[in-house]
Amino acid sequence: MKKIKFVVIGFGGMGSYHARDLIGKNEFVETYGVYDIDGAKNQQATEEGFNVFESYEAVLADEQVDAILVATPNDVHKDLVIQALHAGKHVVCEKPVTMSVADFDEMVEVADETGQTLMVHQNRRWDRDFLMIRELYQNQIIGELFQLESRVHGANGIPGDWRHLPEYGGGMVLDWGVHLLDQLLFLVDSPVKSVYADLSYVLGDPVDDGFVSFITFENGLRAQIEVGTSNFMKLPRWYVKGTQGTALIQDWDLSGQVIKQVVTDEKVEPTPIQAGQGLTKTMAPPSEEMIEPLALPEGIAEFPEFYENVYQVINGLNEPVVKNQEVRNVLQLIEEIFESAEGNRVVN
Amino acid sequence: MKKIKFVVIGFGGMGSYHARDLIGKNEFVETYGVYDIDGAKNQQATEEGFNVFESYEAVLADEQVDAILVATPNDVHKDLVIQALHAGKHVVCEKPVTMSVADFDEMVEVADETGQTLMVHQNRRWDRDFLMIRELYQNQIIGELFQLESRVHGANGIPGDWRHLPEYGGGMVLDWGVHLLDQLLFLVDSPVKSVYADLSYVLGDPVDDGFVSFITFENGLRAQIEVGTSNFMKLPRWYVKGTQGTALIQDWDLSGQVIKQVVTDEKVEPTPIQAGQGLTKTMAPPSEEMIEPLALPEGIAEFPEFYENVYQVINGLNEPVVKNQEVRNVLQLIEEIFESAEGNRVVN
Repeated sequence: MKKIKFVVIGFGGMGSYHARDLIGKNEFVETYGVYDIDGAKNQQATEEGFNVFESYEAVLADEQVDAILVATPNDVHKDLVIQALHAGKHVVCEKPVTMSVADFDEMVEVADETGQTLMVHQNRRWDRDFLMIRELYQNQIIGELFQLESRVHGANGIPGDWRHLPEYGGGMVLDWGVHLLDQLLFLVDSPVKSVYADLSYVLGDPVDDGFVSFITFENGLRAQIEVGTSNFMKLPRWYVKGTQGTALIQDWDLSGQVIKQVVTDEKVEPTPIQAGQGLTKTMAPPSEEMIEPLALPEGIAEFPEFYENVYQVINGLNEPVVKNQEVRNVLQLIEEIFESAEGNRVVN
Repeated sequence: MKKIKFVVIGFGGMGSYHARDLIGKNEFVETYGVYDIDGAKNQQATEEGFNVFESYEAVLADEQVDAILVATPNDVHKDLVIQALHAGKHVVCEKPVTMSVADFDEMVEVADETGQTLMVHQNRRWDRDFLMIRELYQNQIIGELFQLESRVHGANGIPGDWRHLPEYGGGMVLDWGVHLLDQLLFLVDSPVKSVYADLSYVLGDPVDDGFVSFITFENGLRAQIEVGTSNFMKLPRWYVKGTQGTALIQDWDLSGQVIKQVVTDEKVEPTPIQAGQGLTKTMAPPSEEMIEPLALPEGIAEFPEFYENVYQVINGLNEPVVKNQEVRNVLQLIEEIFESAEGNRVVN
């Protein structure tokens, strides 16, 4: 098997992670070289032993190069990708692939024309926590899921580089939102019905430092997707409700639990509790006879890992796990989120 | 001091709690009698030693009676209250006082005409968990609060009586929602700007079995108010964000924590963490040097307890803690919640 030779464009946090680890230590792909417009970063890459190119043109002119990985600021993805496709290179692009549906359509059109592969690195489809929720959803372990809450909370603000500048495509909707929304649309096999969103600007950046969004689907499922960067304590990463129970995943450490309702003819009423100034039966814990704690499901993907799939797609052996139509749907949803937040209205 | 003599109308869960405890064991008011339209409940009250009236007319005709407490199903509050006011009785009414602003306006008008006191038992203004949040808000312990999430979650469905029937004013917006919304409007000294709400009907009742609402205020504060009755695990009762920290109260047991940001010239960057398929600095825990854990505030009310205040108001010694204008604002907000949910749109 011939590994696919990648040149990594952009040697920042994500690009260097691809060059060293994701592509660098993979049986299907390899890091053939690196290029950054910043000389200091090229110097760093040289010191680490990478083959550093002297220009993007040189990368594209090198016939040994099969593919490029684009990990630059978001605003230049489009031009770099289109140039590479025209040069006969396959492309993997970091997320968000672009800042608009229209830009992405242009990129896909060039990929179609040139016959080259264009895939977006929506790597969080392989996150174990997400795959656990996916198993709950697909196998109806707690019945049919009708409510899904997905949150990432940090307290460190926006990382201090281009990610807090609008002209580079900064902001949390485009940074973390795109992951959570991609997971959501990959999970739910029903069209989006409506979107309500509110962006947060509490940290004084010119881009959103977080957001909350309520997304309803044609099949009745409700989702709340939320990113925060001023949260000194976290709410659970996942909170999902099914017709027969509730599941919660606290964090990426995969701690959490599933509580399943016991279906029985004999309903055991809960004991009322004192709650503040009142007594409540409604909000009392359910009787122990009525619930069954389960472990979280395993969260194993039945699809190949990302770069194995890239190898398969380039060699015509499989269809992509991350389909461009799906990526487009996520960008469309992001545009609706911005539209909803700007007008403070529900987008249908 | 002459205690105010109350007759409790309705000897169900809440009425009997008033008769036995809230009014029955109070230094400012006393349970003079009880009346229920259900003979079995009157029998129960008689066995407990209460003075049971034989009709509502008899209650109103008794000159010894100073005031009545209305704890019937919601749909008959209005008629009972208006009759009592006309009969020269003061009235304390259970929440929700009515199912519409228009009905409440009629009641207040009669109270004004007759000069009798009408107060609504919004008792959860005295809940310790709420008062803790109120101290955080007023004393800016974690800076200015800009996000407030208030949830009650149960897994027992709607209690099996009139509360799951629309004609009696059932449903969770009117049952628990009215408490959480009353707390919210009592807390936030700014007008409501917009409301988005989604009601839940997953349990098959003809009324809402829960809801989520997203309420923005003119001063920029965002609130998420939520009630669920099919939640086998609970999200925290309170989750609030300030400009200098985050606070969380888990439950009515008052467990929780406050994390305050340390303001310093020297920012200590967090260590990136592995999160699923990626590394993240944004969502890594803040460096320990940058945060200070605090205990929750005490949560002590600076205003008198409910029935002491009723005594003061009836005797012209104080203004009500629960003002009828505030109750009206909550009913208005509830109408906006129903309007938003019905049309799936933001109500401004």
